[in-house]
Amino acid sequence: MREAMAKAKVGNEAACEDPTVNELVATACKILGKPAGIFLISGTMSNVIAYKVHIQKPGDYLLLDETSHPLIVQSGLIAAQAHATPLPIKGTRGIFTGEQIVEFITRPSLRNIPRVGLVSIEQTTNFGGGAVWPLEYIQEISSLCKENDIFTHLDGARLFNACAHTKISPKEYASYFDSVFIDFSKGLGAPMGAILLGSEEFIEKAWYYKFQIGGGMHQAGIISAACLYALRNNVNSLEEDHKKMQHLIEGLDSIDQVIIDIDLYKTNIAYFSLRNNCISTQELINVLMTNYGIRMANIKGKIRAITHRDISYEDINTTVSAIRKILSNFLH
Amino acid sequence: MREAMAKAKVGNEAACEDPTVNELVATACKILGKPAGIFLISGTMSNVIAYKVHIQKPGDYLLLDETSHPLIVQSGLIAAQAHATPLPIKGTRGIFTGEQIVEFITRPSLRNIPRVGLVSIEQTTNFGGGAVWPLEYIQEISSLCKENDIFTHLDGARLFNACAHTKISPKEYASYFDSVFIDFSKGLGAPMGAILLGSEEFIEKAWYYKFQIGGGMHQAGIISAACLYALRNNVNSLEEDHKKMQHLIEGLDSIDQVIIDIDLYKTNIAYFSLRNNCISTQELINVLMTNYGIRMANIKGKIRAITHRDISYEDINTTVSAIRKILSNFLH
Amino acid sequence: MREAMAKAKVGNEAACEDPTVNELVATACKILGKPAGIFLISGTMSNVIAYKVHIQKPGDYLLLDETSHPLIVQSGLIAAQAHATPLPIKGTRGIFTGEQIVEFITRPSLRNIPRVGLVSIEQTTNFGGGAVWPLEYIQEISSLCKENDIFTHLDGARLFNACAHTKISPKEYASYFDSVFIDFSKGLGAPMGAILLGSEEFIEKAWYYKFQIGGGMHQAGIISAACLYALRNNVNSLEEDHKKMQHLIEGLDSIDQVIIDIDLYKTNIAYFSLRNNCISTQELINVLMTNYGIRMANIKGKIRAITHRDISYEDINTTVSAIRKILSNFLH
Amino acid sequence: MREAMAKAKVGNEAACEDPTVNELVATACKILGKPAGIFLISGTMSNVIAYKVHIQKPGDYLLLDETSHPLIVQSGLIAAQAHATPLPIKGTRGIFTGEQIVEFITRPSLRNIPRVGLVSIEQTTNFGGGAVWPLEYIQEISSLCKENDIFTHLDGARLFNACAHTKISPKEYASYFDSVFIDFSKGLGAPMGAILLGSEEFIEKAWYYKFQIGGGMHQAGIISAACLYALRNNVNSLEEDHKKMQHLIEGLDSIDQVIIDIDLYKTNIAYFSLRNNCISTQELINVLMTNYGIRMANIKGKIRAITHRDISYEDINTTVSAIRKILSNFLH
Repeated sequence: MREAMAKAKVGNEAACEDPTVNELVATACKILGKPAGIFLISGTMSNVIAYKVHIQKPGDYLLLDETSHPLIVQSGLIAAQAHATPLPIKGTRGIFTGEQIVEFITRPSLRNIPRVGLVSIEQTTNFGGGAVWPLEYIQEISSLCKENDIFTHLDGARLFNACAHTKISPKEYASYFDSVFIDFSKGLGAPMGAILLGSEEFIEKAWYYKFQIGGGMHQAGIISAACLYALRNNVNSLEEDHKKMQHLIEGLDSIDQVIIDIDLYKTNIAYFSLRNNCISTQELINVLMTNYGIRMANIKGKIRAITHRDISYEDINTTVSAIRKILSNFLH
Repeated sequence: MREAMAKAKVGNEAACEDPTVNELVATACKILGKPAGIFLISGTMSNVIAYKVHIQKPGDYLLLDETSHPLIVQSGLIAAQAHATPLPIKGTRGIFTGEQIVEFITRPSLRNIPRVGLVSIEQTTNFGGGAVWPLEYIQEISSLCKENDIFTHLDGARLFNACAHTKISPKEYASYFDSVFIDFSKGLGAPMGAILLGSEEFIEKAWYYKFQIGGGMHQAGIISAACLYALRNNVNSLEEDHKKMQHLIEGLDSIDQVIIDIDLYKTNIAYFSLRNNCISTQELINVLMTNYGIRMANIKGKIRAITHRDISYEDINTTVSAIRKILSNFLH
Repeated sequence: MREAMAKAKVGNEAACEDPTVNELVATACKILGKPAGIFLISGTMSNVIAYKVHIQKPGDYLLLDETSHPLIVQSGLIAAQAHATPLPIKGTRGIFTGEQIVEFITRPSLRNIPRVGLVSIEQTTNFGGGAVWPLEYIQEISSLCKENDIFTHLDGARLFNACAHTKISPKEYASYFDSVFIDFSKGLGAPMGAILLGSEEFIEKAWYYKFQIGGGMHQAGIISAACLYALRNNVNSLEEDHKKMQHLIEGLDSIDQVIIDIDLYKTNIAYFSLRNNCISTQELINVLMTNYGIRMANIKGKIRAITHRDISYEDINTTVSAIRKILSNFLH
Repeated sequence: MREAMAKAKVGNEAACEDPTVNELVATACKILGKPAGIFLISGTMSNVIAYKVHIQKPGDYLLLDETSHPLIVQSGLIAAQAHATPLPIKGTRGIFTGEQIVEFITRPSLRNIPRVGLVSIEQTTNFGGGAVWPLEYIQEISSLCKENDIFTHLDGARLFNACAHTKISPKEYASYFDSVFIDFSKGLGAPMGAILLGSEEFIEKAWYYKFQIGGGMHQAGIISAACLYALRNNVNSLEEDHKKMQHLIEGLDSIDQVIIDIDLYKTNIAYFSLRNNCISTQELINVLMTNYGIRMANIKGKIRAITHRDISYEDINTTVSAIRKILSNFLH
């Protein structure tokens, strides 16, 4: 990948003259089945811009799961950048049903009550532990929204993980949404970068906001070369990441003090907690980092583990051993 | 009241030269124990301006009950006008506890996570059925916020109803908040108008936003004369409104098909619903309006009744008879 | 007028149930030839709401004269409320030509350059000294904007003054604009109030923003009764106000130390300055107010005088005498 | 530079764990004499974030030259992102004096008139043809602002060009401003990247907005390696760029049909126009690009030429010959 970056042909990205960026966008359009796309520095910026384009009246509702990434973190971007009112839905592991939202979607618009301007979903869910939205849920929500003239957006930071798990194509998933973004920096292993896709008109408006927040780049070809490499070479390894996660889950489950639902996690994210509070989750995370250089995150008191292409089976074995050792030390 | 309006001395309100407005503001400051105040056209505008002044960073959380009036109606003003992220708390009848919010209030501020900028409560609650916040709840929340440098705002659209019920002074209630507004158009019976109160610095900033949204008036003395009259003459009748509501509740409870919790409503608002769906709530509301000129509201499938100074005991008896008759017709 | 207010039939204005407000709006629609209207507390609020409805993308240009009232005062509402970039045009006495703006209007829209979303003009101009836009200027600008799909708004705070001067109907003027507001509190003498008019769709959106900024009122019939009275009885006196202004100008011109262009001011506003700086403009204004109760304004170092229905010819003579006396005192 | 990128040590930039980014920021802090800095994707994003942090009340004035880059291009970011009212000053080649702004800076704050919240200058000016602000102008404006509690920001996209010309250190220039950014993608030749610098408190707030607009990156070390390389190796070549520009100017001046002020341009930007309209500026630009691969820009009817490290003296000779030939063809 670094070699691809070093050799990249570049140009002025902001003027659409960077050949590598153009190739990356064209490739992504083909894979996702959308007519147009725009290269951006991050997935969060993709959400910011999609929300700004879709929300047509300040105050309109942006409906999303209550654990959604852009609702929980990122400096209140929904209100601050899209001037939208978040309408958080209590889903299961980040996934909600058409039935749960139908009352909001079909509510008659009143002079003093904002309408739902956009429904945004995350596939797979981040704080939901990499859960995969069933296709029929997506289809139902998409139909409901279309019937009621409501835009839909797919936060596809981990879309390829869902595809790897379900064998449903990214194009199929994307077809149910007005806009979608994919991220190259997570499982795909590029240093940074995302592409937001939609109709020609949507992307034309997206450019306006990209410039407004200073998202225009110069020789972006260097980083998009890495993204292009990732798109061409690293998608297939996601399935392996999921197998590694199963290996990690089995390992964790074999430790007495670990509580983990072994049937729950099917992609590259899992959450576990600790029995008896022998040691706090934060302490375990700190010791893992300090003594072993293993990084896990504390998400509302649970420990989040992620597998990716730079984690080997041996790394996982080491991780399980480390946790077992740390916890056993604390038992005695 | 109309006589007071007809005789009012007026001046340019926007330049603080309207003597009647000035007298009204001074009177309200005295009653609420705040150093400064600003006359506004409505309670909603008071909330808009208070939120704009208090929220210091776009995206910051505005914590309030999930049934709060400014969250549910009014065109998404929290996100659209204050650029704040609503943080809705699941209270009981619009009332929450310090315990429920302590995690949000004390959460360390992170670079990508907004802080709580303002806690706003409604006394009495509107969609909560005129429920009165216990003083100790207010005291606890106020202390928590002060300790954590978080502003507090009291939506006092019906504050005098709370005072009439608890005999606690408006000054006592207001003392726990950085800002408070009172409304003259609800139980107090003036045609319109509200006063927002706080520190000198707060009110100075409030003026800036008042002008920004076109809230400056000219000869506002005419309407503030009505507000002044209401403040001097109509506060005492609120207790009577509460007795009338008890009378209405007893009447409603005597009707078989009516479901009402007779111990719940202590001020001038009550909610009831209908047994057996003999007739839909909306149908009952429509028939009451069309055939009897009696206005009730459909709030999420329940019927809201309000008593005020222009409703007599006889009106209440008529109302109960009308409902009894309508429902009995539908039984047979 | 106060009698009309005292007798006004009222209702809930926010629900369109106030009969006096409804009558006022219907009357204004007829006079201005627009299908729909909305009653608001002030002319500034009319501008705020019109700008919010018309500006479709944050950052779009709002083109107006560099001396326009909403650009100069009112807390930066253009940027803060409409999120528009003001595009100030250097007109003559607040009036610009099609030629001056054609380059901005016809500029091709680029991805990083906002388009002109709205052209807003003031008829008559406030800081321009009550200057009247020639009809052919308005026609040319209106055509240019229509051809280029740009909205137009008429700030008609003093529209009836223009009509009184040119004998052109308010309907004729309004026909060139997508939206227009008239103000009842200036020459028309009502205590407060304005009506914003436009298409049904425009007014529907205006309601949304009216609620969002807390502009909804309750028994607004009381103040709209005064507006209705003013609309029916006070429009004809505007011509007299203009004659009074000519009388004032002649008087001022007869004072040696006063500099005034006697051919410039044709409506109810005039500006003058002082020769030799015998006394500062602010001092003269202060002495007039303190010693004689005569109010004039200091606008960028010039003194602004306004005539209206409560100013008599005798008042004007007194004013001229007072100024003559004050200035002669300062000479010796 | 590409080698540096290929070998860069990386980490999670958003968590301040990317060692190369950290090294770059520390280096920039030292050079600019500021306690803290933040790595951003572009100079425009640096302006967006600085403006958002400095502007404290929506509607406040942001004072800058009328030809400033962020005012003219970038989707109206001043109004749309900072909610500030641009206050454009008519400078000379993008440079204004303390005298020109003193009236705005010292104007008493009124309840309905926004204050100047920020003064922002560009060193060197872009649309002003690379003009260099004299140090004494900067000192005077800085003093005026400090005395009046107004923030100052230095758009240093070409700051090192100013330093190369005046031999004044970047630290000296930066010392007069509350915040400053430098850009690595212009004369310094890195593919992209900028650093915004200021106080610890300022940068802490900048992080909040960086996340809000999705400016957080992942392994940003790769691009910051290029920036670090540029900062260490390419600053010295800027003086050479200026000599190259003098060479180009002399060449252009030797062409009959070219109008250029040979005394005006001292850094790496120059503007010229064409005599007799023998060919339009846009035509010349198009022919240069199409037939010779030479890029120049049409800025309001003038042709802008820029020299940089990848342009050789030979390239300049070729450019002059090409222009001479194109123009002579059009003469006959």
